[in-house]
Amino acid sequence: MIGAGSWGTTFGKILADGGAHVTMWARRPELAHEIAEAKRNSQYLPGVNLPRAMTATPHLSEALEGAEQVYLSIPSQSVRQNLTALRPLLSTSDVPIVSLMKGVEQRTGLRMSQVIEQGLDCDPARIAVASGPNLALEIAREQPTAAVISSLNLETAEAVARRARNRYFRSFVNTDVTGTEFGGVLKNLIAVAIGIVDGVGYGENTKASIITRGLVEMTDFAVAFGAQPETLQGLAGLGDLIATCQSPLSRNNTAGRLLGQGYSFQNVVKQMQQTAEGLASVAPILQLARGAGVEMPIVEQVKRVLDGTMDPRDIAPHLTTDDDTPQGERTQNGTTGRGGALRRALERALDQLRHGGGSASGDRP
Amino acid sequence: MIGAGSWGTTFGKILADGGAHVTMWARRPELAHEIAEAKRNSQYLPGVNLPRAMTATPHLSEALEGAEQVYLSIPSQSVRQNLTALRPLLSTSDVPIVSLMKGVEQRTGLRMSQVIEQGLDCDPARIAVASGPNLALEIAREQPTAAVISSLNLETAEAVARRARNRYFRSFVNTDVTGTEFGGVLKNLIAVAIGIVDGVGYGENTKASIITRGLVEMTDFAVAFGAQPETLQGLAGLGDLIATCQSPLSRNNTAGRLLGQGYSFQNVVKQMQQTAEGLASVAPILQLARGAGVEMPIVEQVKRVLDGTMDPRDIAPHLTTDDDTPQGERTQNGTTGRGGALRRALERALDQLRHGGGSASGDRP
Repeated sequence: MIGAGSWGTTFGKILADGGAHVTMWARRPELAHEIAEAKRNSQYLPGVNLPRAMTATPHLSEALEGAEQVYLSIPSQSVRQNLTALRPLLSTSDVPIVSLMKGVEQRTGLRMSQVIEQGLDCDPARIAVASGPNLALEIAREQPTAAVISSLNLETAEAVARRARNRYFRSFVNTDVTGTEFGGVLKNLIAVAIGIVDGVGYGENTKASIITRGLVEMTDFAVAFGAQPETLQGLAGLGDLIATCQSPLSRNNTAGRLLGQGYSFQNVVKQMQQTAEGLASVAPILQLARGAGVEMPIVEQVKRVLDGTMDPRDIAPHLTTDDDTPQGERTQNGTTGRGGALRRALERALDQLRHGGGSASGDRP
Repeated sequence: MIGAGSWGTTFGKILADGGAHVTMWARRPELAHEIAEAKRNSQYLPGVNLPRAMTATPHLSEALEGAEQVYLSIPSQSVRQNLTALRPLLSTSDVPIVSLMKGVEQRTGLRMSQVIEQGLDCDPARIAVASGPNLALEIAREQPTAAVISSLNLETAEAVARRARNRYFRSFVNTDVTGTEFGGVLKNLIAVAIGIVDGVGYGENTKASIITRGLVEMTDFAVAFGAQPETLQGLAGLGDLIATCQSPLSRNNTAGRLLGQGYSFQNVVKQMQQTAEGLASVAPILQLARGAGVEMPIVEQVKRVLDGTMDPRDIAPHLTTDDDTPQGERTQNGTTGRGGALRRALERALDQLRHGGGSASGDRP
């Protein structure tokens, strides 16, 4: 396990509690020593006893020696430089590399699995990502949780899922890395909207409406960029979204709450020591969405609140400027949702068969 | 509006705030008088001012005279007897009849729209149902909310949605009455599970995992009985589920919480003056699910807790007795979920075309 913050350490505990021998790599020797000897990580997981089968080292080569699987849990903006040190150590093996990180690299806009593929110059079939409703401290307290392990190669995902599993943690698998990673990025935007709702003082109806309609926006966006809609309906989309929206400790939620209480964007940035990733993503995601013809009315409203051009009390699960024509729950442009990709596949298959454009049997599930 | 409880009165306010002239029917003359004169319903909606365009009467014939749309909001177990009185008054018109009720008739197992169809002996194309995340008091306070209006006839649904719409309430439409109504029934079972999680003291991860996996169970079940999977992913399924699970006032949630705290089923029933519908539905829904080959591991666990054969602390988003083979997020029997129906349609269409079994063009979206 490369990285011994709260999530890396928690995931190491998941693996060890599932029967694996886990070696944590911590940059700081004193942290490695505390984990290895006291079976504690008092800074990041106060009050949690770590398993006996977990050890730690400040030396990368020691951590990786004989590893059957390598997990990465390092800050998303410093992944690339860490990969430079890892590359020579990992180039002679073909073990799975598992990303526990969410977010995109700000400079390039790449998802974490893409950064890893570039940084290690390795076969993407070796790379897996873990996602889902994963508040570290709750899992460290062994509260029952489910997650998704995703890899382009199902065998890689399954090999990782067989390790990342114990009596309180259950891993499902899929091969939609794009959808799995986009879920972890896009949920931050909806969490800001939910924060605004909290700050204004609206209740559970408004939140449930915005989560439901927000999931449609997340799905539309991800599908436009190659994801499978069902991934967003699962643990890496909906599951992570619900947990993030309900966690009062979430930075995105807090930022939204301050906006909902009437603080300006500048004030919120000042009050919050750390950046809320959701705030930084609003403008770039909306730009990508417009380019792809995806409608994101809730994210649009978050932007207007950030820009100071909309009263947060006017936030709603739809644009109040819409016309009065009743609509279905899928968006008008039909890029959503569940079933959209299959419907298009059906149309293509039928067209092919009708016009004699070759056999479609290869497409058959 | 037939019925002047909290939901009926709130929905009357929605319609009046959208520009309609609304006549409420209240069985008790003093309640009709309070609504008509004081524009208040102090028993069911304390502190809420009702619109001027709302009036009320204790006489059914007065309430229905000249009505362009009729809304029903009466206790689900007394719908049938109320329909007997309504039938002669509604038989000469063809206005839409809108059900605001959730649940099934205990004696027959029929959904509310089916009871209405039988009770009025009318064309099902006239019947619509409204559902979604609809906590009455929050909507009465004009907090932004979205809902679904469903009818077998899209024109009926659209006509109702054009009325049930104002600056704080937005109605979407669909034609999947079965899915829309099942959402409002099945969410109660998952709300009991979430209550158990609350009672045990688990946090947001466990809840988000169970809501996400619970939605898969709801979808599997509803699809097996003819629903469209996307309906369950929308406001009438997911939206209502989230609002119900987050509402500490929900009876199902409260019942689950008491079970999670270690009280026995008998104790819970005694402590709660009113029945929690979710508790009563567990056994019959599981029986139907088994008959249809649908797996519902979360509902199974609720039953075991009710039966006293499982420690509530062991509740999890999956059955802990499952084997270790990693699985996809859809269930093994493939009845789930989003896309499942379309995949089957694709398979059928391809088979038809391959084997010359007639044109499939009528199936084309």
